[in-house]
Amino acid sequence: MKYVMVNAAACVLLACNTTQPEQTNLAQQLAAGKWIDLGYDLSDQTLYWPNNPTGFKLDTTAAGITPAGFYYSTYAFSAPEHGGTHLDAPSHFAENGVGVDKLTLEQLTGEAVVIDVSAKAQQNRDYLVTTNDIGEWENTNGKIEAGMMVFFKTGYGKFYPDAEKYFGTAERGAAAIPKLHFPGIDSAAAQWLADHKIKAVGIDTPSIDVGQSKNFKTHQVLMGAGIPGFENVANIDALPARGAYIVALPMKIKNGSGGPLRLIAWVAKG
Amino acid sequence: MKYVMVNAAACVLLACNTTQPEQTNLAQQLAAGKWIDLGYDLSDQTLYWPNNPTGFKLDTTAAGITPAGFYYSTYAFSAPEHGGTHLDAPSHFAENGVGVDKLTLEQLTGEAVVIDVSAKAQQNRDYLVTTNDIGEWENTNGKIEAGMMVFFKTGYGKFYPDAEKYFGTAERGAAAIPKLHFPGIDSAAAQWLADHKIKAVGIDTPSIDVGQSKNFKTHQVLMGAGIPGFENVANIDALPARGAYIVALPMKIKNGSGGPLRLIAWVAKG
Repeated sequence: MKYVMVNAAACVLLACNTTQPEQTNLAQQLAAGKWIDLGYDLSDQTLYWPNNPTGFKLDTTAAGITPAGFYYSTYAFSAPEHGGTHLDAPSHFAENGVGVDKLTLEQLTGEAVVIDVSAKAQQNRDYLVTTNDIGEWENTNGKIEAGMMVFFKTGYGKFYPDAEKYFGTAERGAAAIPKLHFPGIDSAAAQWLADHKIKAVGIDTPSIDVGQSKNFKTHQVLMGAGIPGFENVANIDALPARGAYIVALPMKIKNGSGGPLRLIAWVAKG
Repeated sequence: MKYVMVNAAACVLLACNTTQPEQTNLAQQLAAGKWIDLGYDLSDQTLYWPNNPTGFKLDTTAAGITPAGFYYSTYAFSAPEHGGTHLDAPSHFAENGVGVDKLTLEQLTGEAVVIDVSAKAQQNRDYLVTTNDIGEWENTNGKIEAGMMVFFKTGYGKFYPDAEKYFGTAERGAAAIPKLHFPGIDSAAAQWLADHKIKAVGIDTPSIDVGQSKNFKTHQVLMGAGIPGFENVANIDALPARGAYIVALPMKIKNGSGGPLRLIAWVAKG
């Protein structure tokens, strides 16, 4: 037995069973593609905003042969919420927005579209994604529908974790913030995405706002609309323009404003 | 157009296209079920082993209206790797085992079976799951195949986060460890699971080893075989005996021995 796509006439012919497919067939369908990891690991190389005094730290609690004769290792970690591949929850920029633990699995899973602005962004470190970019993409690829996730590919992911090339500066401390230069999303484009009721926004730069942003208006718009952001997305080149299925699972920090994100995409085998 | 199950004869009739289904149909298939969250959130209520001096901590870096006039909140966290709903990587108990960041998405996704031992475990806090339990389950539900994930339901999840009821003691410190009483998996059963090349083991208690374990033999066996463990699994009641599809995404700590786990299951709508 197999699943095939048939039209309505053939269904009449076959007296098709119109009940939903069973669970075991989901695994079969998933086997027709593969999961791709869209996240970086967390280490002392993980990139954080320049004014974060500490990055990701891992301390050894135990590592070696125990007195009882078996091997055992365990560690403890500490980090700011917002660094590496991470999620911004609505409460990051919206006082009444939900925290990272309250985002539903319905919101954190779904189909992705990928809007490639890398040709422009590679020539301009301060490139702002506009509603025109979205419109041009739709002209070629079809409409973006409510409930989709929208990823923007700037091409900057290839620089990670080289801070100089990725952030525009490798300097640390508050004085480095005005020196940040990387592409982001214009607030009018953010409003377009909010108006179209997308589930989430992802980008292969440190922030959905451009590096030179002072007021983080794009964060304000999206998070004000309850839409989370995925930042420092890895391997975005592996995603097709349409059709990837995303599972985005942030660390479930109670009342957190965001946190480390495991972000994966299912894509059909090429 | 729709997906239907047809037999080979009908396929000849229809000149079925035998290529794999396209990506967009995955989302349609997933819409026939729902994702269920099998994890607890991380907070100061999160349960850790009694000798962990600190638990999960969240410190406020900023929370309020900025001088520029917009709301902004951000936090920093710290925790041991092994607490709450978390994953044990092979390197936790195997010197040459892979760390949590090296587990492949192939290993972290797949079909789950759920073996319910709660009737016995509710009557015996020190209950050890045996190969007999697995055999009885197979007699009723069919064979456990290589590449499946095996979850054990003891019923203790309902006690979380009440340490007295869940751990068997609410005391803290090394002196409390001998007072731990909760069900776990016998090392012979663990060997059976390793021999059958399952992908992962999950349980709704603090550990895959019983609370009274001194040598953590079940950890040694499974992690020695490269099989990760999921501990403190939540909402296990929501899983069917067969047919759930699991996505297990641990915090991607480079060279970590484990870490906080986002664990979700897709199940068909009832």
